[in-house]
Amino acid sequence: MSWKITSNAQDQSQLLVDESLFSQGNGYLGVRGNFEEGYAKDMKSIRGTYINAFHDIVPIEYGEKLFGFPDTQQKLVNVMDTQSIQVSLDGEVFSLFTGDVLDYKRLLHMDKGYAERTVHWRSPGGKEAEITFNRLISFVHKELFVQWIEIKPLSEIEEIHVESSINGGVTNYVDADDPRVASGHAKRLHVTDVFTEGDVSGVVDETEVSQLQAAAAVTLRAAGSVIDRGSSSDAESVRETLRFSGDQPIMVEKWTVFTDTYRHGDEVKHEAITRLKGLSETSIEHILTGQQSYLDEFWKTADIQISGDDLLQEGIRFNLYQLLQSVGKDPKSNIAAKGLSGEGYEGHYFWDTEIYMYPPFLMTDPAIAKNLLLHRFSLLDAAKDRAKEMGHRQGALFPWRTITGGECSAFFPAGSAQYHISADIAYSFIHYYLTTGDRSFMISHGAELLVETARLWIDAGHMKDDQFRIDDVTGPDEYTCIVNNNYYTNSMAKYNLEWAVKAMAIVKEDDPSSYESLVRKLGLEGQELDQFQAAAMKMYYPYDDTLGIQAQDDTFLNKQVWDLEKTPKEEFPLLLHYHPLTLYRYQVCKQADTVLSYFLLEDEADEETIRRSYDYYEKVTTHDSSLSYCVFSIMAAKLGYENKAYHYFIETARLDLDNTHKNTKDGLHMANMGGTWLALVSGFGGMRVKETGLHFAPRLPKEWDELRFHIRYHDRLIAIDMTTNQTEYTLLEGEPLHFFHHGEELELVSTAIKH
Amino acid sequence: MSWKITSNAQDQSQLLVDESLFSQGNGYLGVRGNFEEGYAKDMKSIRGTYINAFHDIVPIEYGEKLFGFPDTQQKLVNVMDTQSIQVSLDGEVFSLFTGDVLDYKRLLHMDKGYAERTVHWRSPGGKEAEITFNRLISFVHKELFVQWIEIKPLSEIEEIHVESSINGGVTNYVDADDPRVASGHAKRLHVTDVFTEGDVSGVVDETEVSQLQAAAAVTLRAAGSVIDRGSSSDAESVRETLRFSGDQPIMVEKWTVFTDTYRHGDEVKHEAITRLKGLSETSIEHILTGQQSYLDEFWKTADIQISGDDLLQEGIRFNLYQLLQSVGKDPKSNIAAKGLSGEGYEGHYFWDTEIYMYPPFLMTDPAIAKNLLLHRFSLLDAAKDRAKEMGHRQGALFPWRTITGGECSAFFPAGSAQYHISADIAYSFIHYYLTTGDRSFMISHGAELLVETARLWIDAGHMKDDQFRIDDVTGPDEYTCIVNNNYYTNSMAKYNLEWAVKAMAIVKEDDPSSYESLVRKLGLEGQELDQFQAAAMKMYYPYDDTLGIQAQDDTFLNKQVWDLEKTPKEEFPLLLHYHPLTLYRYQVCKQADTVLSYFLLEDEADEETIRRSYDYYEKVTTHDSSLSYCVFSIMAAKLGYENKAYHYFIETARLDLDNTHKNTKDGLHMANMGGTWLALVSGFGGMRVKETGLHFAPRLPKEWDELRFHIRYHDRLIAIDMTTNQTEYTLLEGEPLHFFHHGEELELVSTAIKH
Repeated sequence: MSWKITSNAQDQSQLLVDESLFSQGNGYLGVRGNFEEGYAKDMKSIRGTYINAFHDIVPIEYGEKLFGFPDTQQKLVNVMDTQSIQVSLDGEVFSLFTGDVLDYKRLLHMDKGYAERTVHWRSPGGKEAEITFNRLISFVHKELFVQWIEIKPLSEIEEIHVESSINGGVTNYVDADDPRVASGHAKRLHVTDVFTEGDVSGVVDETEVSQLQAAAAVTLRAAGSVIDRGSSSDAESVRETLRFSGDQPIMVEKWTVFTDTYRHGDEVKHEAITRLKGLSETSIEHILTGQQSYLDEFWKTADIQISGDDLLQEGIRFNLYQLLQSVGKDPKSNIAAKGLSGEGYEGHYFWDTEIYMYPPFLMTDPAIAKNLLLHRFSLLDAAKDRAKEMGHRQGALFPWRTITGGECSAFFPAGSAQYHISADIAYSFIHYYLTTGDRSFMISHGAELLVETARLWIDAGHMKDDQFRIDDVTGPDEYTCIVNNNYYTNSMAKYNLEWAVKAMAIVKEDDPSSYESLVRKLGLEGQELDQFQAAAMKMYYPYDDTLGIQAQDDTFLNKQVWDLEKTPKEEFPLLLHYHPLTLYRYQVCKQADTVLSYFLLEDEADEETIRRSYDYYEKVTTHDSSLSYCVFSIMAAKLGYENKAYHYFIETARLDLDNTHKNTKDGLHMANMGGTWLALVSGFGGMRVKETGLHFAPRLPKEWDELRFHIRYHDRLIAIDMTTNQTEYTLLEGEPLHFFHHGEELELVSTAIKH
Repeated sequence: MSWKITSNAQDQSQLLVDESLFSQGNGYLGVRGNFEEGYAKDMKSIRGTYINAFHDIVPIEYGEKLFGFPDTQQKLVNVMDTQSIQVSLDGEVFSLFTGDVLDYKRLLHMDKGYAERTVHWRSPGGKEAEITFNRLISFVHKELFVQWIEIKPLSEIEEIHVESSINGGVTNYVDADDPRVASGHAKRLHVTDVFTEGDVSGVVDETEVSQLQAAAAVTLRAAGSVIDRGSSSDAESVRETLRFSGDQPIMVEKWTVFTDTYRHGDEVKHEAITRLKGLSETSIEHILTGQQSYLDEFWKTADIQISGDDLLQEGIRFNLYQLLQSVGKDPKSNIAAKGLSGEGYEGHYFWDTEIYMYPPFLMTDPAIAKNLLLHRFSLLDAAKDRAKEMGHRQGALFPWRTITGGECSAFFPAGSAQYHISADIAYSFIHYYLTTGDRSFMISHGAELLVETARLWIDAGHMKDDQFRIDDVTGPDEYTCIVNNNYYTNSMAKYNLEWAVKAMAIVKEDDPSSYESLVRKLGLEGQELDQFQAAAMKMYYPYDDTLGIQAQDDTFLNKQVWDLEKTPKEEFPLLLHYHPLTLYRYQVCKQADTVLSYFLLEDEADEETIRRSYDYYEKVTTHDSSLSYCVFSIMAAKLGYENKAYHYFIETARLDLDNTHKNTKDGLHMANMGGTWLALVSGFGGMRVKETGLHFAPRLPKEWDELRFHIRYHDRLIAIDMTTNQTEYTLLEGEPLHFFHHGEELELVSTAIKH
């Protein structure tokens, strides 16, 4: 149970949401859950197929363009549509919106890795059939998208037509009124080739400016009584038609392989055809078996089980499954804010990766996590360039949103000003080291990145009155922009600075010759590490003596408090109803900011300060960002606010399934999905990874009987089983390990221990 | 002497500058100093004719558009070009860039109000003539632009051709790389009519979106031996040609009348023709006489004379003359940042009007000043709407840049966030009252505006710890945006609040029934005036105890100090070389901010604080804004920094004549021109207008022998003559008056008094 999500929605608004919910992907390729046959004519659909990082370059327009504003941005491009399949029964074209739908259901199988949609349909003319559309994007063959359609005639039918098409002339979705979605530049590619070679046909698309190419090669396999087949094409598309005798069940398989110049070299068409032909002996059953094996392995460590709430269990699995579908697994790609499920935020990578989506992979599948780090590391030079462009004499400033390393943010107060992303990325490298113990990666990559990001803080900040201060940045809370000494930023920068020093010590100790060459490569001067250490030690944290809390920034607590209770419900999210300046003027937060720092760096403040701060900031937080609930859930759990922890968790677990943010149509909220994992493992499980080791502080919500999950830590695989009265830790793989349970140091050996 | 500016420049870069310097206008109509015949083919010219406030609506593009960002902006439109006149000598077309220029000079006569340009030219084929182009925009007939060309043959010439054209198919100037100039939307109008009726021809232009129409009607008058005349036209332009026998001097007069739907109703063509015909009996001499009379009257009060420096004298007169040419004198218009001399800042009105350009008119020609107030008052409803749009529950927030009242700023941190503009406008209404004593205008207009602006501060600010604070606004210094408790803003808001209360008291005292109806109109509630008073009394001014200075805002003094000495000269203005966030992060000012408040509200701080603040802020100010030098000059004069006062004044007086800001080509820096007057009268003259009366504190720079100026105050006309040893005050018109000389109260009666 709870291994699938289902829907039988046929109405416009839920269908748009379902397109995102039923989207499929494997980190390379993503296809939205559009109907093969389309909707009724006047209905809206965001029909999309995406290749991670496959982008065009579009100009950014400004009413007033100031120095350092990026001229262009990268934009994820909707590539050729290969989903389309039309079915006709004796000339009557199948659609959910004509005739009678006698039965209808769609499912996404999260254990088996495919989706199915079954319709019992009676045409206006009275022909009946059961039609099942299945589709799968392979985790084993990353370029493969396969669909198989089964049609069972249930009345007298003479002929069944199936027309499969591939259309290269597609456009992106635009909405001029929503800042979270692209407002223009819909048409970003053109078709350079439409081909039919033997039983393979396809198209090649090329983007307008980046001149990347993507190819799709398609072949159809048919079972049933085929009368004839044919094909036709025009400048942008190709169609294949199959005529079947309508007196017996038929089956049509559509095998599509995608390739792109980003990963497959210049001969994308050839590569696609070759890979497709390489699969000619492979059956659907074989693909399904491979998919199942891959997912069995995934779920073995990633699955989290709760007893007592099926809807939540469904939400948790859905979120984890979608994370797996979205995460890039090659060095060209990362995880976009919406994964590969929609066009919101234009396929860009944000800090969401490091702080929200990377941790589950780090703790369950470190190889995927490492790939994410390698991708960020590949953008280090671009980040150094960006720092220069932003007036810094040194260091690396990672762009707020990007695909290939250039800043894509067109509104710097809530974009480029979010300097914390550089510390967030540093944090992810530090935590890779702490979690895996991989010293060689620290030597080869981590130390360099930590030093370059640390250098940024030295240049961006300054010493005054024996305090190290960082002025004019924006913290995670985008309702308060361009502030001085944002607590989150300062605390994360401090950690970054400290660890730059530690990392260099690790390199020096382990590998003196690598140390020497790294020092040369970095041009690291003698006193720089001292400077890092001094800045970290003297890092300034604004603190309010009266309230006994950390101030979000130097002046946040001096502002007016927004009256959230008197704000009508329809005015949320506030960003769609208030000018940013109005929001800045008030104590009102879009999301966890100081509270997030308390999660990531819990030892920077004492628990009573954390408690008072939590109590304070909770009252002024709207959670208009989907990155907020999970953090509040974690911190509520830590502070023993059991009801709140549970309540906030509920909001994360089914945020997309229930479309609570009302924009799931534009894609899934991937960071929140990572947040679900965090809320379970770090919230209710109380897990933290620190220099001192692995910590747990289990607190099972009273609503549940049991919470079970696994984590990987320093080559161990550990099972955690939380029940009402105890938690059982089991070492499934690896050597014995010391760890902490509610602060008490224990040793985990091969048999389970209960506490 | 010093009544004209001259140039004989023929090089590209200076010609572009001269186009602005030799621009002519009358507040309604402006024509840049382009050559009638144009330049050489590959040379750049910004050929422009502008009608004040005649604008189109253009969309504003944003990479990320947030709530409350304006969708569109108004844009001053370059209207039909009627300047063009081609002269040919026996078929050889006259140009400064062919043949030989044997003598060349252009002049702008600031006493007579016209420009002339004389060329002694020898054609490539050896034909010689002296050609003089004269042009005048009438102060008496605001729609009239007249040119007269005299050609004296100086060699044997058979035929002289003169071709006059009117071209309606013009475009605006764009530069994508300079935020101070439009980056797009060049083509904003189309021709709706090209006509020739008798001896009048012309075109009608219509803007694309605002659908305003402008008409130009032209007639030519010729003296000399005319062989024949003809005309031709196409879809966008009309040409008239005159053939003269080349054996005698000729003269061609081109009379052009402009009308627009904004002032002349819908029948713009008819209106233009009628007005042109109405001038048919009027001669050039008559126009020149009228112009001279108008200017005699203007200079009688406006002229400022210094003895000892002709270049400065020229600069001062030039600046005053350009102010007169730029200021709108009808209720539809104000003074654009560049007057009518160019397209920089797209013809928008800013706070420059109230704080820099209005004071000279207020003190020399109150009728013009009153018209500026009436124009602002006409935008009060729009300002109330804008306040609502920006999330305020009450009050009037004037747009940062506008023509017809809508916010035209596309970058709010240095635009809409400059809330101080509302207090600046309030200040101008208060000073109109203080300077003229016009209580009826306070009753009819002033009080209402003061209450509505005061209401804004109540809503934008808030009480905390018994202090009234105003968060998240931007002061005049655009290198430090979105700050809390900007001293300038808070002090101006305080004045605004105090005067809202005083204004209502004046109305109540003078005219109880007007008071009642105003209270009703405003919906003014009982405690509101108390609230204004309380907010004013409790207004918070950030102050640094260690430095003993007012802090520009809550955190300005905590930031790093920009090292101006180490910054290479070519990196100024900094805004063209640094990202705004970099600038925000440092103590570095674009212009006077706190120091400006010390000028406008000198009694808000004690002189030693002012001195220390001046000393401090001077060191971190780049004067990258042309609004800065004059303020520093004034305050240096007040503080007895004689050299500095003089030095800064020099920078203001010839800023455009010497193109020191390197962008005079885009139009004249009108605010700085007002600043020249301020530096002389309020700086060296030490003039202040306060509730206590009229104050002077003369301090003549040692470089000068004498400084003479006039001011109008409460229906008096007073002459001030400052010499090294004494100042002579003479009451030229009006009743005796008490005033203050260096704090000493004196009475001015009909004879001069010397001090």
